[in-house]
Amino acid sequence: MILLRSLAFRVRIPLNPSTLAMPLPKSPLSPTAPLIRPIVQTRGIQTTKLVSPIKDQNLTVLERSKQLAAWTAVDQHVKPEHRVIGIGSGSTVPYVVERIVQLGAEANEERVFIPTGFQSKQLIVESGLNLGDVDQFPTIDVTLDGADEVDRELNCIKGGGACHLREKVLAEAANTFILVADYRKNVEHLGTTFKQGVPIEVVPFAYAKVLQNLHHILGSPEASLRMAVKKAGPVVSDNGNFIIDAPFDQEKMKDPFTIMAQIKMLTGVVEVGVFCHMAKAAYFGNQDGSVTIKWNDGRIEQVVASQ
Amino acid sequence: MILLRSLAFRVRIPLNPSTLAMPLPKSPLSPTAPLIRPIVQTRGIQTTKLVSPIKDQNLTVLERSKQLAAWTAVDQHVKPEHRVIGIGSGSTVPYVVERIVQLGAEANEERVFIPTGFQSKQLIVESGLNLGDVDQFPTIDVTLDGADEVDRELNCIKGGGACHLREKVLAEAANTFILVADYRKNVEHLGTTFKQGVPIEVVPFAYAKVLQNLHHILGSPEASLRMAVKKAGPVVSDNGNFIIDAPFDQEKMKDPFTIMAQIKMLTGVVEVGVFCHMAKAAYFGNQDGSVTIKWNDGRIEQVVASQ
Amino acid sequence: MILLRSLAFRVRIPLNPSTLAMPLPKSPLSPTAPLIRPIVQTRGIQTTKLVSPIKDQNLTVLERSKQLAAWTAVDQHVKPEHRVIGIGSGSTVPYVVERIVQLGAEANEERVFIPTGFQSKQLIVESGLNLGDVDQFPTIDVTLDGADEVDRELNCIKGGGACHLREKVLAEAANTFILVADYRKNVEHLGTTFKQGVPIEVVPFAYAKVLQNLHHILGSPEASLRMAVKKAGPVVSDNGNFIIDAPFDQEKMKDPFTIMAQIKMLTGVVEVGVFCHMAKAAYFGNQDGSVTIKWNDGRIEQVVASQ
Amino acid sequence: MILLRSLAFRVRIPLNPSTLAMPLPKSPLSPTAPLIRPIVQTRGIQTTKLVSPIKDQNLTVLERSKQLAAWTAVDQHVKPEHRVIGIGSGSTVPYVVERIVQLGAEANEERVFIPTGFQSKQLIVESGLNLGDVDQFPTIDVTLDGADEVDRELNCIKGGGACHLREKVLAEAANTFILVADYRKNVEHLGTTFKQGVPIEVVPFAYAKVLQNLHHILGSPEASLRMAVKKAGPVVSDNGNFIIDAPFDQEKMKDPFTIMAQIKMLTGVVEVGVFCHMAKAAYFGNQDGSVTIKWNDGRIEQVVASQ
Repeated sequence: MILLRSLAFRVRIPLNPSTLAMPLPKSPLSPTAPLIRPIVQTRGIQTTKLVSPIKDQNLTVLERSKQLAAWTAVDQHVKPEHRVIGIGSGSTVPYVVERIVQLGAEANEERVFIPTGFQSKQLIVESGLNLGDVDQFPTIDVTLDGADEVDRELNCIKGGGACHLREKVLAEAANTFILVADYRKNVEHLGTTFKQGVPIEVVPFAYAKVLQNLHHILGSPEASLRMAVKKAGPVVSDNGNFIIDAPFDQEKMKDPFTIMAQIKMLTGVVEVGVFCHMAKAAYFGNQDGSVTIKWNDGRIEQVVASQ
Repeated sequence: MILLRSLAFRVRIPLNPSTLAMPLPKSPLSPTAPLIRPIVQTRGIQTTKLVSPIKDQNLTVLERSKQLAAWTAVDQHVKPEHRVIGIGSGSTVPYVVERIVQLGAEANEERVFIPTGFQSKQLIVESGLNLGDVDQFPTIDVTLDGADEVDRELNCIKGGGACHLREKVLAEAANTFILVADYRKNVEHLGTTFKQGVPIEVVPFAYAKVLQNLHHILGSPEASLRMAVKKAGPVVSDNGNFIIDAPFDQEKMKDPFTIMAQIKMLTGVVEVGVFCHMAKAAYFGNQDGSVTIKWNDGRIEQVVASQ
Repeated sequence: MILLRSLAFRVRIPLNPSTLAMPLPKSPLSPTAPLIRPIVQTRGIQTTKLVSPIKDQNLTVLERSKQLAAWTAVDQHVKPEHRVIGIGSGSTVPYVVERIVQLGAEANEERVFIPTGFQSKQLIVESGLNLGDVDQFPTIDVTLDGADEVDRELNCIKGGGACHLREKVLAEAANTFILVADYRKNVEHLGTTFKQGVPIEVVPFAYAKVLQNLHHILGSPEASLRMAVKKAGPVVSDNGNFIIDAPFDQEKMKDPFTIMAQIKMLTGVVEVGVFCHMAKAAYFGNQDGSVTIKWNDGRIEQVVASQ
Repeated sequence: MILLRSLAFRVRIPLNPSTLAMPLPKSPLSPTAPLIRPIVQTRGIQTTKLVSPIKDQNLTVLERSKQLAAWTAVDQHVKPEHRVIGIGSGSTVPYVVERIVQLGAEANEERVFIPTGFQSKQLIVESGLNLGDVDQFPTIDVTLDGADEVDRELNCIKGGGACHLREKVLAEAANTFILVADYRKNVEHLGTTFKQGVPIEVVPFAYAKVLQNLHHILGSPEASLRMAVKKAGPVVSDNGNFIIDAPFDQEKMKDPFTIMAQIKMLTGVVEVGVFCHMAKAAYFGNQDGSVTIKWNDGRIEQVVASQ
C-alpha cells in the first residue's frame, strides 16, 4: 500500500516543478471565462490602448447624473501637471476612470494611479493605466473616492467595504481629496441613512477589549463584530484585522471628529471609518440628472444636466 | 481654529488612558445585548458550571438524527483517558459538545479542548470547557469535526467556511479523527452535491499564478477567487490569505488524493480543502432519524433511532 | 515521567503516515533535544507540578536585586482573589513567575495567566501555570511587565522587542499595571538612556507616508524602519506590521503624552511604544542589591536587601 | 533636481494638519537624511534617468568576478523582446541591475521588473526601472536571483533571508530562471557549506506540530524555530509566518526533491527553501576573477576575466 502510493507519486507527477518553469501551453482561453480573472496587464506600454470601464452608455437618469458628477470632479481637479492620482471605490468611481481615460494616452502615460483596494486595482489595470503603490508614492496629487455618507462639513463615513484604512492613507497622502457619490450619500449629519455604525478596524486579539471599551465607555452598546457570509466567523480585512461596526446616537454623530479621535486612541484600534476635515469637495449625482457640489468652505453648487 | 481644536482635545479628553487603567464602571450589562459578545470565560474553574450549547430540545426528526450521530460518535471515541480533544465546526458539532458536557465537570476538568476556528472557540468557552491551542498541544487524542462532503473511502471536502487549514492541522495532529454531519454530506464520490469546487487557501500575491496553474495545467478552467459579501474584494481567511474555489470534473474527483497532492505542491498554495486517509469513521444523521456510520475499513453500520 | 511522555508520543504517532506521499521512516525519538521546543503543556492539571523558571539561585548582586524587586511587586499586588493575571517580558519577569509559582498549586489552580508575547507564553506554560488569552479575558486583575525606560511619572517606553501592541492591550485591560525592571531603566525623563527612539508599529503599505509625517511634521528627522538581522528587509511584528524607531529631542520627550497622541493619530500607525498614565508602581532592582519603588502619586520607596 | 523635489514636498504639505489633534509645527525639511528612505520614484517616466546601483567601480577581484558573472547572465538571458523580468536578492544581484541599466532607457521603458522582496523593490525603484507585481504579471520572461547554495544539478537552497516563498513564486512563474552567486555557493551536494538547515515557512499556529513531524518522522531532530534579533520571539516573514530551519544529514540531502516534497506536503507548511529542477543555468564569480557557468544539461563552462 505504501509502496503503491510512492510509486503512484512518481508516476502521477504531482506537478513536477520543471513543468511550471517551462512555457505554459499556448492554449486558447478556457471556453468558460473565470468569474474573477487575474489582473494581467497587456505587455508593452506603447501598445496599450486605454479602455474605458464603462462599456454600455445606455444609462438611467441616475447613472447619467453620477457620470456627470464624476466627469465634473475630474475636469475640475485632475490638472495636466498631476502625476500621481489616487483612485478609490464605489459605484461612481468607474465614471471617474472613464473620464481620465478620455484624457488620452499621452496625458496619462506619465501618470501613475494608486488604488485604494483590490477592486480599484482591477479598474486601473483593466483600463490600461499605470499602476503604482503608496509606499513608492507617499505624496499624491489628487485622490478621488466614494463614501458611505457625507455630511455638510464634508466629514464622511467610509468602511462599508472594510477598506477604510488604505482609503484614509490615500486621502491623507493626497494634496487634494475629492468625494464622488450618488445623492443617497448626501446628508446633513452622519448616521442619517447609514445606520450600521462606524466601521472600526481592530487587531484580532484586541477585539473583545475594544468592544468592552465601546460598550461601557464610549457609549455604543450595540457595537459588534462584523460577521462574514462566505467564510465562517468574522470578516477579515485585507490587512488581516477584524471589523467592528459601532452605532452611536444622532447627537454624538453631530461631532464626528471627537468620536473618531476617541476611538482611534483606543489601544488595538487600527483605523476608524470616519474622515474629518479631509475632503476639499464632494460631487453628488442626483435623481433628476443634476449634480450637487459641496465645498469645504460651505459653498454649495448645482450643475444642471446638459440635456 | 487650530487653537480651538487643541483646546478641545484637552477638554474633551478623548479617552484619557488613565481612565482605562482604572476599574471599569460596574455598570449592568447594556440594556440591548450586543449581537456578538466577546468571549469571556466565567472566572474560577471550580465554580464553572458546564452548559450545553443546545438550549431547546424541541428538535425536528433530522436534528434528532444529527444529535444521535454526534452522541454516538462521542460515546464511541471520546475515552475517559483522553485529555486533549479537538472540536470542529458544522451544524452537527454543537451536539458533540452537548454530549461532552453531559459527561460532567469531573470528567472534563482535566481536559483541554482545541478549537478549529472562531466559532468552535466560542462553543468551547460558552460551554465552560477548558480552552487550549494546538501550538501548546501538538498531539491531540481525538478530533471531531464536520465536513462539506464525505465519500465512501472517508475522503472529504472541507473549506466552505475557509477554515480548512486549521481544521487539517487538528485532524493531522489527532490520533483519531472523526467526522459528524447530516445525510446530505454522505456521497459516493466527492463533487456530487458540493459543486462550488475544491477550496484552496493561497498566499495573496500568488493568486494569479495559482489560478493560471489551475486553469491551464491542472484542468480546472473555472477556478476563481472567492469574493466576499460583507467587504469589498476577495474573502480573506483567518490567516490573511485568499481562497480559490476550483471545480474539477467528476472523473478527476474520483482520485481526490492526486488532485490534493498536485494542488498542494503548487508554490503559493497554503492548504487544500481535500482530506484523504485521515478519518477513522464518519457519522451521518439521516432524514428518518437513523444514523449511518461509515468506517475507514469499508464497513457501514446503521443505528436506528431509539424511539 | 519523561519516559512516560516519550512512550506516549511513540505510541500515538502524531502524524498519520498515509497523508504523506512517501513511506515515512519509523525513526525513534530524536537523541538530541531541539533548540526551541514546542510549547507542550503537561497533560492533566492536577498532576501538574508548578516549576520555577529560575533554576540556578547562584545570583549576582544585581540579579538578586531584580529578584527582590519582582518578589516585592508580586507580594504587594497579586491578591489572593485575583483570577486573571497578565505576564509581560523582560529580564526581571522570570522572577515574577518564580514568586507566583511559590504561591503554590492551590493558589494558582483557579487562575489564568495572559502572556504579552511568544516568550511569556513559554514562561507560563513551562512553569505549569494555566494559559489564557486576552480575547477571552478582556478584563485583567493585574499585569506585571518590564519596560525599556520609566520616567518619574511612570510614563514608559516599550517596544524594543516589537511587542508593545499586545503589551499595551494587556496594560490597558488591567485594573492594576505594575512595572518591574533593573536600575538602568529608571530615568528622570524618557530618552535618557534608550536612544534608539520611540518604537512605532505601522501597517506595511503606509510606512513611507508615516516616515514622511515623522520627518517633516512631527520633528523626528531620523525616524527609520527597523531592519531585521535574521531575515532580509524590515522587522515584521507578530501582527504582520513594520516597526519604525523615531528619536525625538530631549525637550519633546518631556511631554510623552503629546508625542504619543500625535503619533497614534497618524493614519497607518497601529500603536506607539509610549505608555502614559498607565502604571500604578514601578519596581527597580539596584546595583547594591536594594530595590527602588516609584508610585504614580510621586512617592519613592527604598527596600533594603534582607541580607 | 533634489532642490526641486524638496520644494515640491514643502509646498504640497502631505499631511492635512487638521487631521492631527494638536497644532503641527511648521518644521522645515529635516537636515539629516533618514537612514532608510521611503521608496519614492521620481515622477514622470520620460524624465527618469536610469541609475546604476553600483556607485564605486573600485572592486576587489572577487567583486569583479561577481560582476562578470552577473553581466554574462544578463547578456545571455535577457533578450530584447523580454517585457517582464524578475529581480531577486543576494550580493551578486546589484550587478545584474547594473547591467540592465546599461541597456539604456529605451530598451527598458517597455519593461516591468518584479521584485522578490523589500530589498529588490528598493533596487528596482532606485535604479529608475518600472516596478510591477506578480499578481499583475503571473508569467515572467526571465527571473535572475541569488541562492544560498547550488548543487551540480542546479537544485538550490534559498531562504536564509526568509523570502523563499516569493522567490519561488517568481522562479516558477518565469519561463527562464537563472542563478547568480559567488563561488562559495557552488557545491557538489546541498548542505555542504550552508549548515543551518532547510528554511521552511510555516503558519504560526502549526509550528509545534510541524516541528514534531520534522523531529520524529522526517528525520531532522535539530529542526528549530528561527529566533529574531531585533524583536522578541521568532522571526516573522513578510507573509506573517514563522521560519523553521531543519538540518538533514548529508545522505538525505543528496535527494533534495524528496526532502522538499515530503516537507511541503506537511499540513501547516507554506513553502520549503529547496528549489528543484527550476534553474536553467547558474553563474558563479570565482576568487581568481573568472566565472563558472553550470547548465541544467550538465555542461560546465569557464569564462576568463577579460583583464
